[in-house]
Amino acid sequence: MFTLIIGNKNYSPWSLPPWLLLKTLNEPFKEQQIDLYLSDSKARILAANPAGKVPVLVDDKLRVWDSLAICEYLAECFPAAKLWPDDPKLRATARSIVAELHSGFEVLRHSLSMDISLKQIDYESSPALESDIARIVSIWETQRERHIADGACLFGRFTIVDAFFASVCTRFQTYNVALPPASQAYARHILSLPAMQEWYRAAERERRRPG
Amino acid sequence: MFTLIIGNKNYSPWSLPPWLLLKTLNEPFKEQQIDLYLSDSKARILAANPAGKVPVLVDDKLRVWDSLAICEYLAECFPAAKLWPDDPKLRATARSIVAELHSGFEVLRHSLSMDISLKQIDYESSPALESDIARIVSIWETQRERHIADGACLFGRFTIVDAFFASVCTRFQTYNVALPPASQAYARHILSLPAMQEWYRAAERERRRPG
Ligand SMILES: N[C@@H](CCC(=O)N[C@@H](CS)C(=O)NCC(=O)O)C(=O)O
Ligand SMILES: N[C@@H](CCC(=O)N[C@@H](CS)C(=O)NCC(=O)O)C(=O)O
Repeated sequence: MFTLIIGNKNYSPWSLPPWLLLKTLNEPFKEQQIDLYLSDSKARILAANPAGKVPVLVDDKLRVWDSLAICEYLAECFPAAKLWPDDPKLRATARSIVAELHSGFEVLRHSLSMDISLKQIDYESSPALESDIARIVSIWETQRERHIADGACLFGRFTIVDAFFASVCTRFQTYNVALPPASQAYARHILSLPAMQEWYRAAERERRRPG
Repeated sequence: MFTLIIGNKNYSPWSLPPWLLLKTLNEPFKEQQIDLYLSDSKARILAANPAGKVPVLVDDKLRVWDSLAICEYLAECFPAAKLWPDDPKLRATARSIVAELHSGFEVLRHSLSMDISLKQIDYESSPALESDIARIVSIWETQRERHIADGACLFGRFTIVDAFFASVCTRFQTYNVALPPASQAYARHILSLPAMQEWYRAAERERRRPG
């Protein structure tokens, strides 16, 4: 059985994509949580992963670290689930979007930090933040125009792309970010997935970090 | 034929991995360069890629953006070249390393910024920078212990992992970073590859950025 090592559900956006995939796959897995806000947290993370970060997937003797590498590994382990789009060109677009998310959007991540238990929080706008938000909305609207016939997810079926956008959807909800209707519908769809609801309930039960 | 849109060879670390792969594949491609330090650079980048970054790979009507997504696409287009390790577990490790590089090492990237035409530059040390350097050395030494029999690259044959470390090797050379012998040998090997030599010569011919 896999073990997935994650951080606080309330605060750890990178823990979410692999967790969502495992839930979507209906794959039983052991969940091991490291509270990221204790005095010995860093030591415990480093013991799990010399790269010093969660998430980590443990598969017998193999440790896969980094959310994106874990998602790629799950896509290879479960080819029938088609966690990436089937078509090579669509898959390349999907990977471009995920890679952009994986390495960018620092301002959005910092200004709208993930904090699931907070509701309707005001945020301070800035040109850099609005530009990050506009870029995400533009990806969503472009993909939805292309795939509107296929359903509510960005590439038809639920893929790694949606798993990576899930934490963005929580931020847009927490900070009440105004979105055009199609984007609003997409965010609502992702947040309403049973696995997301389960993540929310667990996050809301966690103790808040100090300070 | 592919077109690869890249930045200044002297300054653009993310342009290097896909360029190196295409050269290693012996795949003819059109190279299109955007000087990142002109007043209209941002507009030109945005015209090539709404994500606002280079590199971009153009394959007929498809645009693949982000260095990592481009490398994944090339790995799929040329399976015989084995741009990722063949073994699924080794491939997962390789992807973990590349994902870690793709999203981290901000301090190293900022403090030892890529600037190929500079030689023997002093750098200001800091605990965060030394920790980034130590993490890279530890990945190199771990991989080399495992694959020493296979040759000079981290997973035996030249893979996407080496392509991503190439810009790190240029920084270690520019800033004269002290390395343990096996790591030094690895960096020297990567820098001596014919494609890297070609990149160096072109970078050294470019005009320096203003300021
Ligand atoms: N690129 C990594 C980023 C992982 C990351 O930043 N994780 C955070 C939690 S969401 C973490 O481990 N923070 C604790 C620390 O840096 O000490 C990934 O995608 O997995
Ligand atoms: N995550 C991206 C990062 C690309 C990136 O930061 N590219 C730099 C050049 S190396 C760039 O386009 N800078 C110009 C700008 O940001 O305006 C990748 O891996 O391709």
